[in-house]
Amino acid sequence: MKFTVDQIATILQGTVSGDGSQFITGFDKIEEGKPGSISFLSNPKYESYLYDTNATAVIVSKDLALKNKVKSTLICVDDPYVAFTILLQKYQEMTATRETGISIHAIIEAGVKVGKDLFVGRFTSIDSHCKIGDNTSIHNQVSIGKNVQIGDNCIIYPGVVIYNDTIIGNHVVIHSNAVIGSDGFGHAPQADGSFKAIPQLGNVVIEDHVSIGANTTIDRATMGSTFIRSGVKIDNLVQIAHNVDIGANTAIAAQTGISGSTKIGENCLIAGQVGIAGHLTIAAKTIITGRAGVTKSIKQAGQVIGGYPAVNNAEYLKRSALIRRLPELFDQIKNIK
Amino acid sequence: MKFTVDQIATILQGTVSGDGSQFITGFDKIEEGKPGSISFLSNPKYESYLYDTNATAVIVSKDLALKNKVKSTLICVDDPYVAFTILLQKYQEMTATRETGISIHAIIEAGVKVGKDLFVGRFTSIDSHCKIGDNTSIHNQVSIGKNVQIGDNCIIYPGVVIYNDTIIGNHVVIHSNAVIGSDGFGHAPQADGSFKAIPQLGNVVIEDHVSIGANTTIDRATMGSTFIRSGVKIDNLVQIAHNVDIGANTAIAAQTGISGSTKIGENCLIAGQVGIAGHLTIAAKTIITGRAGVTKSIKQAGQVIGGYPAVNNAEYLKRSALIRRLPELFDQIKNIK
Amino acid sequence: MKFTVDQIATILQGTVSGDGSQFITGFDKIEEGKPGSISFLSNPKYESYLYDTNATAVIVSKDLALKNKVKSTLICVDDPYVAFTILLQKYQEMTATRETGISIHAIIEAGVKVGKDLFVGRFTSIDSHCKIGDNTSIHNQVSIGKNVQIGDNCIIYPGVVIYNDTIIGNHVVIHSNAVIGSDGFGHAPQADGSFKAIPQLGNVVIEDHVSIGANTTIDRATMGSTFIRSGVKIDNLVQIAHNVDIGANTAIAAQTGISGSTKIGENCLIAGQVGIAGHLTIAAKTIITGRAGVTKSIKQAGQVIGGYPAVNNAEYLKRSALIRRLPELFDQIKNIK
Repeated sequence: MKFTVDQIATILQGTVSGDGSQFITGFDKIEEGKPGSISFLSNPKYESYLYDTNATAVIVSKDLALKNKVKSTLICVDDPYVAFTILLQKYQEMTATRETGISIHAIIEAGVKVGKDLFVGRFTSIDSHCKIGDNTSIHNQVSIGKNVQIGDNCIIYPGVVIYNDTIIGNHVVIHSNAVIGSDGFGHAPQADGSFKAIPQLGNVVIEDHVSIGANTTIDRATMGSTFIRSGVKIDNLVQIAHNVDIGANTAIAAQTGISGSTKIGENCLIAGQVGIAGHLTIAAKTIITGRAGVTKSIKQAGQVIGGYPAVNNAEYLKRSALIRRLPELFDQIKNIK
Repeated sequence: MKFTVDQIATILQGTVSGDGSQFITGFDKIEEGKPGSISFLSNPKYESYLYDTNATAVIVSKDLALKNKVKSTLICVDDPYVAFTILLQKYQEMTATRETGISIHAIIEAGVKVGKDLFVGRFTSIDSHCKIGDNTSIHNQVSIGKNVQIGDNCIIYPGVVIYNDTIIGNHVVIHSNAVIGSDGFGHAPQADGSFKAIPQLGNVVIEDHVSIGANTTIDRATMGSTFIRSGVKIDNLVQIAHNVDIGANTAIAAQTGISGSTKIGENCLIAGQVGIAGHLTIAAKTIITGRAGVTKSIKQAGQVIGGYPAVNNAEYLKRSALIRRLPELFDQIKNIK
Repeated sequence: MKFTVDQIATILQGTVSGDGSQFITGFDKIEEGKPGSISFLSNPKYESYLYDTNATAVIVSKDLALKNKVKSTLICVDDPYVAFTILLQKYQEMTATRETGISIHAIIEAGVKVGKDLFVGRFTSIDSHCKIGDNTSIHNQVSIGKNVQIGDNCIIYPGVVIYNDTIIGNHVVIHSNAVIGSDGFGHAPQADGSFKAIPQLGNVVIEDHVSIGANTTIDRATMGSTFIRSGVKIDNLVQIAHNVDIGANTAIAAQTGISGSTKIGENCLIAGQVGIAGHLTIAAKTIITGRAGVTKSIKQAGQVIGGYPAVNNAEYLKRSALIRRLPELFDQIKNIK
């Protein structure tokens, strides 16, 4: 990358304060800004870094009132975080290179249908009756079972395992060592205390624009499908059990687990280490705070819920505040007595 | 599959209500029932689907009193869930095909003893001094270390790693990217604040009929063995630390972690996201509810425990109820004063 | 191993009580002691085993006052646990064998710089512009991306994936199926409710003497680096998000998750299943108890914190005690009324 501050400001529709003719060659966090780099200031708690940074340019809010002198040239925009994100995306579009071609160390079963400009890495196996779309990259040591469909423009990182019969749409990214389509955890208890496995005959369907994190597991359905709908973003080490259905554009942070047959609505935000019990329905636009344990269906859309068992977050915070006041309560009772 | 409803009813020892001569060609959940498919109704909260479903046949309880007309033929049995499970198992037995043969892209070290009808997938490595039983399937990209024993009729899915000296019985299923026999987390603190790794010289022993989920980790013992006893069922993303001993026919749901040297009794049911501290003993038939944190040994068998620190679940639920009533309590005190 | 008890006592600077001329050929836990083996007694709650064990020798504290007869020869030392650990380490140093050589089934891209005495296992891929140090072992089915540096004396176990641009120091151990350098979970919400991925252009830097557990995930930074500092020990199934910085000699137990941009100080001890929110700073020598949820920065070094939201552990334990006394409190109020 080599652009002037002025050129970047034009891309971001911002105004320049300072010397716009300087060249920018990289990105830095504001506290690590170096000459030649551009940074941004969004969170006010980092404002002090603005006056110390060595970054050549900093993207700031057009509403920022400076408290001190700054060495950097400023690009003033409506939303510095959004502007910086756009800049990173432009940069990636310009610089990202995609390998194509099929490694001679990959095995693709005869009869598999492959699209244009495929990339297949080393020691990857694609089994019979699969169909892979255009511009898709399947990296090293990936195992793709029988009868799997993968659409266009997908990236499957090294070590991913995709079981038989999985269906994956377009623009899907799956990070390393994630497992898609393993058996649901279904075991019927027998009279002697042992278990007999319940066959898991369904599959996993992943729609378009989905992103799945490293070491995440998504189980196949007992019957029918486990659904990950369009635009869903799933972080690392997340567990999605059999027959779960995650609504479009829902985001799920790391180490969260969703139990069998639960249906999550669209546009939900689920924080990290959340647990959701089985056979529930979670309304659209629900926000579930970190480490919440959801034991009942959420019927009203757009609520923030937290705690365990999870309730409306305002109620949860009130209870937490009262628990903090318990010592005071015990003292008052002692006094009353 | 192509059977008449009458034939299926005979297998399930049920009675037919409706046209038993129709052919069944697949399975569906009741709310997704299609012509030609069979479904079941077990949970009364789904009963409304019975009157709408397009499934050709539905397995129901012989005690069900119909509230409306049904289009489907009914098979009436003692326990519809058990009956349906049996049907799925019969179907799987009839249709499942097992590949055999050793891929030319697998490497098996000279001297490894292998049984009859082995399947070994692509890019799988089996190291020296291993012994593998009959009818066992070892899928793609599996790494099996030195001196590992695996019994008959096992299925090791793609990407599993089995470290040196692991012993695995018969009828064991291990799902993708699980890791068996990694070092226990033992580091001796040194005077300068650094750690020195404590050698982990033991192994992992997995007995018969065990099932292990995707991305689950089971650490080798410091000395002796980490034991997973006969019939244990472990879900995805579970952590079993060094020297743990899981009793026969215990089931453990996803994302649960069991710390070092803890001994779990037989026939326990451990829900998801549970944590159990180290060096504890959990009595047989203990049921541990979701997200519980167990910090003390459980001596009396057959209890339900929950909460953190975990206590008898009745006590936990009582406490939770009182916490919900805290606002009321604070109000009462205000009034008294 | 074949040493006399006397020889071992000399190594450990201990004194012998009993027959020191007997030979030791292995290690056992005290409750599983067999003739020919040596064990140790450190935790007083296991003392009863001392009087029953069949171990030929037991390492005990020089301050132990025997309550019964023992069959074993005793080696009396200052700290039996430390002494036993030293013995295990000596044993491992003497017996451990390292394979060297590059498998003919591994692919190392032309131009990769490799050190002396490298071991590279089967079906492992090392991509362009990498640099690998001396005496490092890279086991089977490992994927190493472009421009990765790995130092001397490292062990990378089977199935590990290391993304482009990762930098790894010396004496680093990474257990199977861990993922280093996957994209941070950053998605910018768009006006229509969908997300647009924020490019993750940074990398992961792992310093010397770090150990990383099986199936652990460490995300690359958005910009700059995610840092795992010298001597850090990380257990299995841990999530380290983008731009996190873990201070030297901090230990993190299984299933803990640390959110983006959080900075953990040196010499912290973080127990299992802990969650730490993003953009926090945790002071050095903080001890975080199991399952704690940390939502605020910890400024004072050396505290023990617990609960959720996490507070000083003494305060947390006090609150927990008061919650247990809630039934009593409700009763008292009833009486007062």
